[in-house]
Amino acid sequence: MAPCLSFFFLFLCSFSAIPANSLPTFFPGAAYQSLIKQAKISKPKLPFKTHYFPQTLDHFTFQPKSSKLFYQKYLINSDYWRKGAPIFVYTGNEGNIEWFAANTGFMLDIAPKFKALLVFIEHRFYGKSMPFGKDSYQSAKTLGYLNSQQALADFAVLITSLKQNLSSEASPVVVFGGSYGGMLAAWFRLKYPHIAIGALASSAPILQFDKLIPWSSFYDAVSQDFKDVSLNCYQVIKGSWAELEAMSTQKQALAELSKTFRTCKSLHSTASARDWLWTAFVYTAMVNYPTKADFMKPLPAYPVQKMCKIIDKIPSRATKLSRAFAAASLYYNYSRSENCFKIEHEVDGHGLHGWDWQTCTEMVMPMTCSKESMFPPSGFDYEEFAEQCRMKYGVSPRPHWITTEFGGERIQKVLKRFGSNIIFSNGMQDPWSRGGSSPC
Amino acid sequence: MAPCLSFFFLFLCSFSAIPANSLPTFFPGAAYQSLIKQAKISKPKLPFKTHYFPQTLDHFTFQPKSSKLFYQKYLINSDYWRKGAPIFVYTGNEGNIEWFAANTGFMLDIAPKFKALLVFIEHRFYGKSMPFGKDSYQSAKTLGYLNSQQALADFAVLITSLKQNLSSEASPVVVFGGSYGGMLAAWFRLKYPHIAIGALASSAPILQFDKLIPWSSFYDAVSQDFKDVSLNCYQVIKGSWAELEAMSTQKQALAELSKTFRTCKSLHSTASARDWLWTAFVYTAMVNYPTKADFMKPLPAYPVQKMCKIIDKIPSRATKLSRAFAAASLYYNYSRSENCFKIEHEVDGHGLHGWDWQTCTEMVMPMTCSKESMFPPSGFDYEEFAEQCRMKYGVSPRPHWITTEFGGERIQKVLKRFGSNIIFSNGMQDPWSRGGSSPC
Repeated sequence: MAPCLSFFFLFLCSFSAIPANSLPTFFPGAAYQSLIKQAKISKPKLPFKTHYFPQTLDHFTFQPKSSKLFYQKYLINSDYWRKGAPIFVYTGNEGNIEWFAANTGFMLDIAPKFKALLVFIEHRFYGKSMPFGKDSYQSAKTLGYLNSQQALADFAVLITSLKQNLSSEASPVVVFGGSYGGMLAAWFRLKYPHIAIGALASSAPILQFDKLIPWSSFYDAVSQDFKDVSLNCYQVIKGSWAELEAMSTQKQALAELSKTFRTCKSLHSTASARDWLWTAFVYTAMVNYPTKADFMKPLPAYPVQKMCKIIDKIPSRATKLSRAFAAASLYYNYSRSENCFKIEHEVDGHGLHGWDWQTCTEMVMPMTCSKESMFPPSGFDYEEFAEQCRMKYGVSPRPHWITTEFGGERIQKVLKRFGSNIIFSNGMQDPWSRGGSSPC
Repeated sequence: MAPCLSFFFLFLCSFSAIPANSLPTFFPGAAYQSLIKQAKISKPKLPFKTHYFPQTLDHFTFQPKSSKLFYQKYLINSDYWRKGAPIFVYTGNEGNIEWFAANTGFMLDIAPKFKALLVFIEHRFYGKSMPFGKDSYQSAKTLGYLNSQQALADFAVLITSLKQNLSSEASPVVVFGGSYGGMLAAWFRLKYPHIAIGALASSAPILQFDKLIPWSSFYDAVSQDFKDVSLNCYQVIKGSWAELEAMSTQKQALAELSKTFRTCKSLHSTASARDWLWTAFVYTAMVNYPTKADFMKPLPAYPVQKMCKIIDKIPSRATKLSRAFAAASLYYNYSRSENCFKIEHEVDGHGLHGWDWQTCTEMVMPMTCSKESMFPPSGFDYEEFAEQCRMKYGVSPRPHWITTEFGGERIQKVLKRFGSNIIFSNGMQDPWSRGGSSPC
């Protein structure tokens, strides 16, 4: 039975044998970076100036090497700023900072009204902010410094210094972030209330840890998005995995699949096709915006509806797998630039598997697929997951650390108290919304 | 001109050449430990059971060695506890935990009323909680893990685990602490509001950093305590330093001083006599309790008054130095157990200079002596201080880190907001009170 996959493994491990119960958690960053590498998407011109800040490697120990400096990238837009007015800071997540700057139009939209300074800070170990240059991802000895608390301290130090340099200590700071960046924004307000007066945490699943919410929540929500549009659509996708599974036992399966999936090169594994489909449905649910957009990939407005329209239009005599493929093609080829699909990606040697490291250390977000989801049912075996992490990085995950450091059961109570000033802006169709704190 | 000394240097460096502007910050812990070593004070029987918790070495990096465990000591009293009732936790500071347990009677006093569980947690790198055993103080490579953030995370992990083990997740936790332990209690409530619902931070100078308060505040407050009792007393002490200084240029100065100060062995330095006096006046001001007590040393109620009474009673034809000595003797020999004074202490090789390390890394608390103080005027030269730290430990201080991590100018505003639940219980005569946040 097919597992709930980690999409980071999908993009980053290049189809190495993925154990049946590998961790099914993901955020878009690394995957997107991989796509950039592959597709050479041209970067849009952004209205920001680039700066670099000499940042401390390790804020929380005082060994001789802790004080090593690295250069942390940040972007500034002061077009609308009036001194003394607020500073809006995007707490960068798992990708290069331009990506988030290009896709957080809201901050640019409201800057004129507030006469705000805009600052986008890149997260350590992503983009250009590599503490050990091209060796940053070499081993746990370097990667060990990649985690959320160090990132929050980076933000604190950079913001404090920036305000001093601008002689704007009195300017209120509001932090913004989406996805993991949203978690960082919420946690920053929680841990540094003397620096940020509030946070807008968008699609920030701060409850996706330990046993705070049912582990099947994420994939149930993805499935519900499709089911809400069309029961047939949901059923076709749900049925497609069994067809793929059955196909994989046949002779000539790979040749047949390569043809069905219009691959540029012959497939080496049916798992690649499964993961390719999976990615399309999950990411499309994550970016099911009501407008045309280009966050993960160029997509029309309401792409889940469009996918289901494709499925529902195809006569039911066609296989479920071929209909699922047709729907997934929308995700990969809405711009009609692809003549064939590069389904099996090459691994990029460094810079892309940061999130995989983070899930193997602190960001342990267990996810399963229930029988009601449109994905094949699967569980989460913590021991197996931990063993994989030990094999890969030589470190063990700390599955209860995030809830200890940032709050478990009691966190919602704490956040709802007067003065927390955190807005959790979860869209109701957002698969991450169930792991987010309810708006307060 | 005599400097404002660090009392940690006094006790720990055993009269090595102390630069004129060495850091004049201190807390009582290490000095007390030194006294214990020297005087072999018998330990009182405490109403606590001793436990050890397997604690993570480094909470904030994920290198292979970060997950090394050490055994953190903690004490429990469950005599008054009713399950579901509050848990009162003392956030241990720079000394062995028994010392704080023996001197925080307030928690024992109120435990029956609240049916509270009492927990005293030892701070890493003090007492028995040594991450690298007897090598813990060997170098910055081991000491690097000694700092307040790691200590707070220790408390968070231990409390969370303890509550789970006791099936008492719903029990509210209130943290208590005094001096540096009070800072930790306040900071714990600030950083871990999901774990502690409130804090009682006693004599906690969280504003003693950067330029938040005048650097002369501490010694001005000590001086004011003496001045308030007797102007003559203040003037005698203030004048004694010049007499000591003048004496040091004379032949036979050390022999003469040894006689005046009734030393057990001949003095090697006049600085020892100066530091000995200094310690007596400063610590007595710090423990100027309205009752007989035995925190630093056995002392009567209102010991500053008693000291001044001694000074005021001696005819003014006696030297100021001899009168200052007589007053200081109260501090060292209230119990009349000493026939002579061991003024020059031996250095203990390890376990005693934890606070010195902390001041050389993050706990940079600049202090100066103003002309109005009863101590010789002195400044604070950061560069000189930093150079000493680099020479001693091979690391540079981070003088702005505490205000970045825990709050600078804005911290009082943050703490005063509704729901902070932190009580700063500064006595008005407490020299640390000016660096404490005003009660809220």
